[in-house]
Amino acid sequence: MKSIASALLAVSAFLALPAHAQFAKPEDAVKYRQSSLSVIGTHFSRIGAMATGRAPYDAKAAVENAEVVATLARLPWAGFGPGTDKLSNKAKPEIWTEQAKFKDHADKMVAETTKLLAAAKTNNLDNLKAAFGPTAQSCKACHDAFRNN
Amino acid sequence: MKSIASALLAVSAFLALPAHAQFAKPEDAVKYRQSSLSVIGTHFSRIGAMATGRAPYDAKAAVENAEVVATLARLPWAGFGPGTDKLSNKAKPEIWTEQAKFKDHADKMVAETTKLLAAAKTNNLDNLKAAFGPTAQSCKACHDAFRNN
Repeated sequence: MKSIASALLAVSAFLALPAHAQFAKPEDAVKYRQSSLSVIGTHFSRIGAMATGRAPYDAKAAVENAEVVATLARLPWAGFGPGTDKLSNKAKPEIWTEQAKFKDHADKMVAETTKLLAAAKTNNLDNLKAAFGPTAQSCKACHDAFRNN
Repeated sequence: MKSIASALLAVSAFLALPAHAQFAKPEDAVKYRQSSLSVIGTHFSRIGAMATGRAPYDAKAAVENAEVVATLARLPWAGFGPGTDKLSNKAKPEIWTEQAKFKDHADKMVAETTKLLAAAKTNNLDNLKAAFGPTAQSCKACHDAFRNN
């Protein structure tokens, strides 16, 4: 009976997880977080090029890039679950030993990317520039604290 | 003068590209297409689990997953540009020799994922199931034609 109870408990714990936190194996979670962060980086750098004058301002492209960034910003964090802490040299152990702080950084980034999308939708370059800085800072703060270079 | 003219031409050609087609180097484009397809696969498989009864139906999660899939479905194709054809064994040469056919497959997948999101938003499992099949078929058709296993 004990093994059945344990199995049921394990299943219910699994089902209780939000769907986005489910990976078949830890390596899948690592690939997922790296892939989603990589795509975020690509699109965020295109907004950065416009915000810093390295590329011409294209209001439609800014919105499209910001939509991708804001949609993806919510994703990577599910890939930092238990058992994924030893699988990448880039992820510092502090992600798992300071989880509340890590979550604060993730939440901050999600909030800033939401503001960035709203700014992009105003079709005003000054608004985009104003929102770009704090968003970039939220990326950098987390990288400085939790990522090995 | 010729070199300046050539340089200006190169710059203007670069700027004429849509923002989403710009990568610093071909390897970045390959990483981008592989990353975006990987994240699509993760979220689409979660919808598939619900549509095929392997996971309980969660209407909110279905919408969230379908939003990620529909947003990302437009992205990978920019990563199959010129000069990226020899950098991955998974991509068949036909991607570049049969570009119109490849584009048809990509467009089909984008269209199906848009329908999938609309179906998810009805909060009706039967609608989700009905849209899941054609979307999965659009993935498979392109993989069969253009991807080495």
